[in-house]
Amino acid sequence: MALDEAALKKFGFIPRETKDAINIDPLQTAGKLTEEARRALLEWGDGYSVCDFCGGVLDLIKKPPIEEFVHGALPEFLNIDAVRITHGAREAKFAVMHSIAQEGDYVVMDEVAHYSSVVAAQRARLNIKKVPHSGSPEYMTDVEGYATAIEEVIKETGKAPALALVTYPDGNYGNITDVQRISKICHDYDVPLLLNGAYAVGRMPVDAKKLGADFVAGSGHKSMAASGPIGLLGVRKEYADIVFRKSPTNKNKEIELLGCTSRGATIMTMIASFPHVVERVNNWDQEVQNARWFSGKLEEMGIIQKGQKPHNHDLMFFEAPVFYEISQKAKKGRYFLYRELKERNIHGIKSGLTKYFKLSTFQVGRENLQYVLDSFQSIIEKYENEK
Amino acid sequence: MALDEAALKKFGFIPRETKDAINIDPLQTAGKLTEEARRALLEWGDGYSVCDFCGGVLDLIKKPPIEEFVHGALPEFLNIDAVRITHGAREAKFAVMHSIAQEGDYVVMDEVAHYSSVVAAQRARLNIKKVPHSGSPEYMTDVEGYATAIEEVIKETGKAPALALVTYPDGNYGNITDVQRISKICHDYDVPLLLNGAYAVGRMPVDAKKLGADFVAGSGHKSMAASGPIGLLGVRKEYADIVFRKSPTNKNKEIELLGCTSRGATIMTMIASFPHVVERVNNWDQEVQNARWFSGKLEEMGIIQKGQKPHNHDLMFFEAPVFYEISQKAKKGRYFLYRELKERNIHGIKSGLTKYFKLSTFQVGRENLQYVLDSFQSIIEKYENEK
Ligand SMILES: Cc1ncc(COP(=O)(O)O)c(C=O)c1O
Ligand SMILES: Cc1ncc(COP(=O)(O)O)c(C=O)c1O
Repeated sequence: MALDEAALKKFGFIPRETKDAINIDPLQTAGKLTEEARRALLEWGDGYSVCDFCGGVLDLIKKPPIEEFVHGALPEFLNIDAVRITHGAREAKFAVMHSIAQEGDYVVMDEVAHYSSVVAAQRARLNIKKVPHSGSPEYMTDVEGYATAIEEVIKETGKAPALALVTYPDGNYGNITDVQRISKICHDYDVPLLLNGAYAVGRMPVDAKKLGADFVAGSGHKSMAASGPIGLLGVRKEYADIVFRKSPTNKNKEIELLGCTSRGATIMTMIASFPHVVERVNNWDQEVQNARWFSGKLEEMGIIQKGQKPHNHDLMFFEAPVFYEISQKAKKGRYFLYRELKERNIHGIKSGLTKYFKLSTFQVGRENLQYVLDSFQSIIEKYENEK
Repeated sequence: MALDEAALKKFGFIPRETKDAINIDPLQTAGKLTEEARRALLEWGDGYSVCDFCGGVLDLIKKPPIEEFVHGALPEFLNIDAVRITHGAREAKFAVMHSIAQEGDYVVMDEVAHYSSVVAAQRARLNIKKVPHSGSPEYMTDVEGYATAIEEVIKETGKAPALALVTYPDGNYGNITDVQRISKICHDYDVPLLLNGAYAVGRMPVDAKKLGADFVAGSGHKSMAASGPIGLLGVRKEYADIVFRKSPTNKNKEIELLGCTSRGATIMTMIASFPHVVERVNNWDQEVQNARWFSGKLEEMGIIQKGQKPHNHDLMFFEAPVFYEISQKAKKGRYFLYRELKERNIHGIKSGLTKYFKLSTFQVGRENLQYVLDSFQSIIEKYENEK
């Protein structure tokens, strides 16, 4: 590919088709920027913008108030001793695994763990022991299975796993598992617990101390109305000196963070959205009510919600035999649903899926949710009439 | 810190004081967004925006043309076999060190290496052997010193270092070292060479094959007019399967990248600025001329340029006895220069520095550079008259 004028024309500014759609993709609903974050993005967009104000340690910048945010507001928000900004939940998980475990150690995690937890462990060259779930329809993690898994690792290797991880909630079913019980089990074996809160932090209350989590990973672009890539890592003080150990040669640089992470606009968007994020977390009950109401309405159409019931999160997984049936006969086959929704300006159910799909109701609001329900209904009717 | 209304008021949108200044901070001159990148930032600002179009592998997204950019344009741009997007130059360097070296191995690097190269090696638990420079005034890396350092590692450990790294140019003096000779030396010992091009890629031509670099790290927020954090990693095909190895359990996810990296607006800003970046790289000669002209004018004021001469890069280091002298008597002491420049809307010489400082002339343009020169002159005259 020669970099001539014709080739370069393909790059430059590229419009985003889905920008104005009603987006019910669980990846997207809680990452949508607030108006403040949009303004921050433009204001701080240039390269290393925040570094204009840096005395050598990014998270100690006083003006803009990054220090107060990272060392004051976020620890309070999560009720955990120390917080740092990362590039995302996966980078937070890797930082923990890489710093507190040795190559070849075990990490115990739930079978519903996100692939990025698995890949983070693989990158840190750890072994994985999975804790099973209950299977269809609820897919609830077997909480007591953490003890079994830990016992197995001890039996096989002679020592406890270096870490346990729980996904809260998982990214497929949106199940909220009993983390208090899991942390109790882990701590009985002196195994620290990492809470993957990619779908929790910024959506719902997360109290690390109450849950008994030693580490919390959060995702800014997924759940904190921030422009990605950005996330956070909360650490209990017992582990802070290990995870945030400083360089012997460059005394103020934290090795595991490579000195600094969010050296641009991303951190300023997280700060910009933070007041709104605190507020929406306080209104979490309403979000759960919306999810349950929406799920109930879909069930009336014969679309079945899998996972925990009644549901406790905006991320939900559905089985839709009615759409599957249509796809078997429809002209566009299994792509019919994506296209029908697209025509109605709804985005977020993956192209090609009809029988099983997940979606999120977070911050979509009753009015738009009603419109989505009406759209589902009208699609069903359209194809029924075509029969 | 309670997260009440008063506390939250400190966050939200925060204006950026330096936004409209003439910025001569080397960190900032080449990271300033193009108009296209500004538009892309707003368009793609929401959370995981690009993931709306993802089939499972971020760098294979066809529309927007991320695949063509990452797998077509960037390898051509650097003349290297494979490229991936990272969160920055340091993350690219760590990915290389972590994947091709074993804990305890040695990496040889120049003494002028950026701290992030050192910290990346420390994170990967490697030992470092430094190659000295010539000291004041030129600080040129002793090219033949790479052979000496490699020999020393072999003597001490019985095997060659896992990697050599060269900083091109270094971030203090902007020196362009003879990489072709260094790569020849390294390859004679079968040691692969990582080019830290944080200050090169996006500013000046970088031809990995011609230079003999096996790996290239670039920085989007520093040198590619992109919104951070973003960077890139170029890899020669011999090493691509190691660095970009795939997960055994999640077949399409690259372990070292944790599956995906730039899952948001940052990649779209790099793409948006790319046509401009290609053009400015083609005009590199003009930038070098501007740097030399600027340096010559400062020398006429008694401000001495250190590092390579004549200079081959926009990043330059100066010794300014005239400012140091003023600072000894001025009311505001060593902060006088920062404040005087601030009053003149010039930013980028670190607050408190007077005797030694670095700056960059990249893309500042002759007119603004003349204004900076005039400002320096007028500051000198002001304090001379005060004597
Ligand atoms: C449960 C879960 N954890 C973690 C992640 C990854 O988050 P991040 O992109 O911040 O690394 C995801 C992304 O989909 C997820 O679903
Ligand atoms: C020479 C050099 N290399 C690397 C870096 C780090 O670049 P990045 O922020 O992309 O990791 C810097 C930053 O100042 C630098 O000066």
